[in-house]
Amino acid sequence: VLSRYREVRDLTDRLAAPLSPEDQVVQSMPDCSPTKWHRAHTTWFFETFVVGEATYDPRFSYFFNSYYEAVGPRWSRAERGLLTRPSVETVAAYRRHVDDAMATFLAGDVPDDVLEIVELGLHHEEQHQELLLMDCKHLLSRNPEDGTYVAGELPTGGRTPKLTWTASEGGIVGVGAGPDGFGFDNERPRHDVLLAPFELADRLVTNEEWQAFVDDGGYRRPELWLSDGWALVQAERWEAPLYWLPEGEFTLRGVQPLVSSAPVCHVSYYEADAFAHWSGARLPLEAEWELVAASRSVAGNFLDDDVLHPTGSESPFGDVWQWTASSYSPYPGFRAAPGAVGEYNGKFMVNQHVLRGGSCVTPRSHVRATYRNFYPPAARWAFSGVRLARSL
Amino acid sequence: VLSRYREVRDLTDRLAAPLSPEDQVVQSMPDCSPTKWHRAHTTWFFETFVVGEATYDPRFSYFFNSYYEAVGPRWSRAERGLLTRPSVETVAAYRRHVDDAMATFLAGDVPDDVLEIVELGLHHEEQHQELLLMDCKHLLSRNPEDGTYVAGELPTGGRTPKLTWTASEGGIVGVGAGPDGFGFDNERPRHDVLLAPFELADRLVTNEEWQAFVDDGGYRRPELWLSDGWALVQAERWEAPLYWLPEGEFTLRGVQPLVSSAPVCHVSYYEADAFAHWSGARLPLEAEWELVAASRSVAGNFLDDDVLHPTGSESPFGDVWQWTASSYSPYPGFRAAPGAVGEYNGKFMVNQHVLRGGSCVTPRSHVRATYRNFYPPAARWAFSGVRLARSL
Amino acid sequence: VLSRYREVRDLTDRLAAPLSPEDQVVQSMPDCSPTKWHRAHTTWFFETFVVGEATYDPRFSYFFNSYYEAVGPRWSRAERGLLTRPSVETVAAYRRHVDDAMATFLAGDVPDDVLEIVELGLHHEEQHQELLLMDCKHLLSRNPEDGTYVAGELPTGGRTPKLTWTASEGGIVGVGAGPDGFGFDNERPRHDVLLAPFELADRLVTNEEWQAFVDDGGYRRPELWLSDGWALVQAERWEAPLYWLPEGEFTLRGVQPLVSSAPVCHVSYYEADAFAHWSGARLPLEAEWELVAASRSVAGNFLDDDVLHPTGSESPFGDVWQWTASSYSPYPGFRAAPGAVGEYNGKFMVNQHVLRGGSCVTPRSHVRATYRNFYPPAARWAFSGVRLARSL
Amino acid sequence: VLSRYREVRDLTDRLAAPLSPEDQVVQSMPDCSPTKWHRAHTTWFFETFVVGEATYDPRFSYFFNSYYEAVGPRWSRAERGLLTRPSVETVAAYRRHVDDAMATFLAGDVPDDVLEIVELGLHHEEQHQELLLMDCKHLLSRNPEDGTYVAGELPTGGRTPKLTWTASEGGIVGVGAGPDGFGFDNERPRHDVLLAPFELADRLVTNEEWQAFVDDGGYRRPELWLSDGWALVQAERWEAPLYWLPEGEFTLRGVQPLVSSAPVCHVSYYEADAFAHWSGARLPLEAEWELVAASRSVAGNFLDDDVLHPTGSESPFGDVWQWTASSYSPYPGFRAAPGAVGEYNGKFMVNQHVLRGGSCVTPRSHVRATYRNFYPPAARWAFSGVRLARSL
Repeated sequence: VLSRYREVRDLTDRLAAPLSPEDQVVQSMPDCSPTKWHRAHTTWFFETFVVGEATYDPRFSYFFNSYYEAVGPRWSRAERGLLTRPSVETVAAYRRHVDDAMATFLAGDVPDDVLEIVELGLHHEEQHQELLLMDCKHLLSRNPEDGTYVAGELPTGGRTPKLTWTASEGGIVGVGAGPDGFGFDNERPRHDVLLAPFELADRLVTNEEWQAFVDDGGYRRPELWLSDGWALVQAERWEAPLYWLPEGEFTLRGVQPLVSSAPVCHVSYYEADAFAHWSGARLPLEAEWELVAASRSVAGNFLDDDVLHPTGSESPFGDVWQWTASSYSPYPGFRAAPGAVGEYNGKFMVNQHVLRGGSCVTPRSHVRATYRNFYPPAARWAFSGVRLARSL
Repeated sequence: VLSRYREVRDLTDRLAAPLSPEDQVVQSMPDCSPTKWHRAHTTWFFETFVVGEATYDPRFSYFFNSYYEAVGPRWSRAERGLLTRPSVETVAAYRRHVDDAMATFLAGDVPDDVLEIVELGLHHEEQHQELLLMDCKHLLSRNPEDGTYVAGELPTGGRTPKLTWTASEGGIVGVGAGPDGFGFDNERPRHDVLLAPFELADRLVTNEEWQAFVDDGGYRRPELWLSDGWALVQAERWEAPLYWLPEGEFTLRGVQPLVSSAPVCHVSYYEADAFAHWSGARLPLEAEWELVAASRSVAGNFLDDDVLHPTGSESPFGDVWQWTASSYSPYPGFRAAPGAVGEYNGKFMVNQHVLRGGSCVTPRSHVRATYRNFYPPAARWAFSGVRLARSL
Repeated sequence: VLSRYREVRDLTDRLAAPLSPEDQVVQSMPDCSPTKWHRAHTTWFFETFVVGEATYDPRFSYFFNSYYEAVGPRWSRAERGLLTRPSVETVAAYRRHVDDAMATFLAGDVPDDVLEIVELGLHHEEQHQELLLMDCKHLLSRNPEDGTYVAGELPTGGRTPKLTWTASEGGIVGVGAGPDGFGFDNERPRHDVLLAPFELADRLVTNEEWQAFVDDGGYRRPELWLSDGWALVQAERWEAPLYWLPEGEFTLRGVQPLVSSAPVCHVSYYEADAFAHWSGARLPLEAEWELVAASRSVAGNFLDDDVLHPTGSESPFGDVWQWTASSYSPYPGFRAAPGAVGEYNGKFMVNQHVLRGGSCVTPRSHVRATYRNFYPPAARWAFSGVRLARSL
Repeated sequence: VLSRYREVRDLTDRLAAPLSPEDQVVQSMPDCSPTKWHRAHTTWFFETFVVGEATYDPRFSYFFNSYYEAVGPRWSRAERGLLTRPSVETVAAYRRHVDDAMATFLAGDVPDDVLEIVELGLHHEEQHQELLLMDCKHLLSRNPEDGTYVAGELPTGGRTPKLTWTASEGGIVGVGAGPDGFGFDNERPRHDVLLAPFELADRLVTNEEWQAFVDDGGYRRPELWLSDGWALVQAERWEAPLYWLPEGEFTLRGVQPLVSSAPVCHVSYYEADAFAHWSGARLPLEAEWELVAASRSVAGNFLDDDVLHPTGSESPFGDVWQWTASSYSPYPGFRAAPGAVGEYNGKFMVNQHVLRGGSCVTPRSHVRATYRNFYPPAARWAFSGVRLARSL
């Protein structure tokens, strides 16, 4: 477990390495957090829930608690970018300090329930690795002329492959994580769901298809949109996915040409739903997606591949998180864990939709068929895209 | 059909009768509409979708279209209260004008598909009868010392009856409206759902029980709340249901003593959910509610009873709309109707939760077991309350 | 004094007479008040400061106090439009009730200091007569197709007369009201001011001249504007005076053709200042204006003329209030009156500019050379225009 | 001139030196700018208005133009904190690059009008030295536990000295800068003003006196306040000057004990005016202040003294900027300079009040008796305080 601990922790620091102290401290919108904050918060998680005492600096629990009401008061989320201190360097020292404490701790006789918290902490840190990249992409996008995270070219792609579908008879199917192995509480308990016959697209919606939607007046035709979505299109003057620019697409490698055959990325639920209407299909239910994905191994384009941008593959996993038609609700019989970590998931189960499959900035080991990600329907800064479904 | 038409239309005017021109023109918040607007909009619906031409005043389609993008541009919803003209008197004349046109029209040979639109228009007007009362209650509540809609005393109630439960084995159950009879498009198609064993409370949560929740710190304990709900509790300083006052409860009959045994009313989904957590139970799924209600006849406290306030009964119907744990989503195979009336329901299927059962300001004939009402989780001005459920 | 009392009070009711109850209750923006409120508030002033007790309805002091902190708490200004009750009819009865009390009171032996308050109350009511027309014009303008206050045509005007100037040597000049006669506290004490030589235009800026400013890119050239004004031009997308429409101008007589030779009206200080820059002149200081006006009798186009729209004249008075370059500050030695009426003027002496001369909706008897009106620089709903000045 | 150039430019970098890259990049409110931005913007001023071409990086004119419309489009002021790039290091290199160009330029034959722009640029940079300290104080104050700019103790002070007054007969007095020597355009032209007899306090209002105001309910008594000020007191819950804390006062040297005899600092115009009312005095006119100060030499507590906090002295200058009762208006005959630098002052002459005297973070050489500083009446983050006046 210590070697897995070190691996995960090191990756976080490697992801932060291309960013200057200036890049690591600024918060570009209330939904985002500074890189420095992600690095400190994930450390605080281990310090608070495993080590159990704040020995580095007593103020850090106030600064770096995210949303755990049971742990105590905390710095306002929208003002994380005001914390110029502690410095990036001090946060690095804090990480080393807690890593040393954890090394000592894990060398001892660790009870199983604490090991479970350690594992939770590592999955938690993997989530923040993705958030770190999402958030720094958003920040850097505000200054697109000078916003490269790392240099390098992206694959140029080819033609959009023909769209084929995988059909399913549906019926009573099991959904969710079983009792063994790691899973977040929101994936449990495993339970039966009744599905009607359906088919799921074998690949993601591409930029080329999205361009056709745009060209067909997709962002100007209210009949395609949910009412709340249409209001937002007008208020925010949306005309294309978040990072599309006249001269290409903003990526973690700076502004790059838009690759026609690559999966579209950074669209909201509203856009995904409008596109599905326009195309004559619909978004899948999360259970439909899981039924198809459960028989496949986790493969595709992940953070480990270091492309940091969707490219497309034949796997149901990877490239972009896929919006589902399912609102984020507790599974029948869901129970939050006791104590503060019980606040991990359950309290967010309203006003959000489930996304499935992982993205090009998710660690591959973090992804599984039962994994439930979730964002509000207006969110666009996640690496989110679309896979279509149809009823049979 | 003409006699049913006249009955529904007359009721609207009777509901408006206690209100002065001043009361009928003001809009107390963007979600509410002036009484005058409700009276004109329901008339516009028949003029537009049945009569098919605007012969009274061509401007009225701009003023009184609610949200039908396909019909054309329209006056801003949040500014309906700026329309001091046409006057209440002119709106009454407009109603008579269209009623005359409808009488002529209905005396002729009306095709079946048009008769369906007439029936839709009448159900639509019944919805606005409830909205008219909700909205004028909200307006009058802003001036509670002088805010009586109609005079009269309310039943004083007795003790809260003991809570008993109706158990169900669940299994595969049919949900939704079948092909015959009137139903909104969002109730269709009828389809199968798989339910786990559960039980549903035989009565609604009462004011006495809600007071116990308040007394136990219900509005001050974040662990009971969804995260978005807790943020709202703090931002809006919620401490009790919307119309509770130190000296009683604001009702359509002015400020009245709070009746312990009466069902609690005017709570948001967030409050309903927090209460359910606190009580150790949960909110029902809409399919659970429908399964129990489908075997019962529609009885209880409705607009027809002219109490205009919840009193409690043994019926699953009436008194207050009951929040369910189900977000408002399309049923599998849902299709919106073609044309403008297709905007009736489908485009609102996001960011809302389903409520079931009808309320003391709903016409009884408007209610059925498959009926799906819906509001955003923060809404409190509807006559909304709570019935608990438990998994078995 | 009773006959003057009756005359002023009657005029208020005559001004309200063309407005329906619906028109009298709605508030179109926070700066405006409903007609009903103006009618009640002016009555409350006499009841509170002269009669001295609230015998009609004790709640009315809460509803109809405008801003007198010393009198007690009051209904929020921005929510005056929520008060659908008391009705317009009740407010009329309230007026009669207080008028009766005042008649009895004034028939007795009234001390001089109380007579002064009565006189203040009458000037106060004259101010609200103008506000009533300003506010109802704003409300009706929101619905321009159906927004006539009273019918009737406006004079068509001729050509803009040639611009001539009245020169002054300046020097040490007396400014402000002397100890005798009625004057608001902000006009006192009379004091000396040192003026450099200047000249003042003999007529107001006309619509024709303003159109030339518009045509020359006046609303698109930042170099002409104060920085705060330019920000507002962009935020509010100003392109012309408030009530200019493509098809003419919105007036109290509905939409009418724009009369070239008539004084421009409904411009903000920012617009007035930008126009002055563009024209190579400047706005006058209030002392400059007063020096010229003091030698002239009060004549011109006032409320008494019942045109209700600027037409132009040779008088320095009437038609439109004229923005001056002087910010609204206390005169040297200014002292607010003791007690609640001391809140009349002094506490507003910041963030506003002085306007002089009276307008076509001001009672003629209300105007004098020393009169100081004031509005924030962004305000456009007053009947405000421009007279130019130049340094010599 | 080159040696003066180097001196000023070096001081800016010395002031930035205690701040980390993180401290230099964050913007704590729209009124403030990041330290990095101040360093770059002052450099851009010389590059644009003296050197005349952008040779370092063509994007910098877009990033670092503050408000010069005539120079071209620019980055939004409220989003200066989003610019994590160019880095602090690059900005330092940019400074060196332009300094080299300036050294070459100044070694040549520089026409007089360009020398004037150089002098303007140096005074401009001195203004930004003060802004840099104001803005970083505001930023650091948001994190008071870890917000020290530089370490060191402050003088402990003694008792508040007795208040004495300097009387003046007033009369016609000259105000403003004469034609010779450096002065901003807003100080000119020198002109005559007529003053009534008055007296001006010989020292600033102290913390002890302000505490008495607080203790006497100063922040809870509406009768003391301008109406706009009172609205702000309630909306922002002001109870004391900006940086007062329960445990002392936030300063550039961290949290320090409040020194009774030191001048109160970081109060708005509204607070200054309310205090003056409470004390039975008033704020001085700017001409009154200038008349008294013109006969004194510039002495007192300035940036050069390196205390960075008000301590009190017998000079009319230094310690804190003193709010005057004069709104910021153009002097009679004022003309903005031709070209882009004409935007320096004139376009801000509305909605602000004049402050006089310089502060403990103003370079001494920057201050003179005719100097007019200005802020909106709600501003509190400047080093602003109060000197009382009285009419005789």
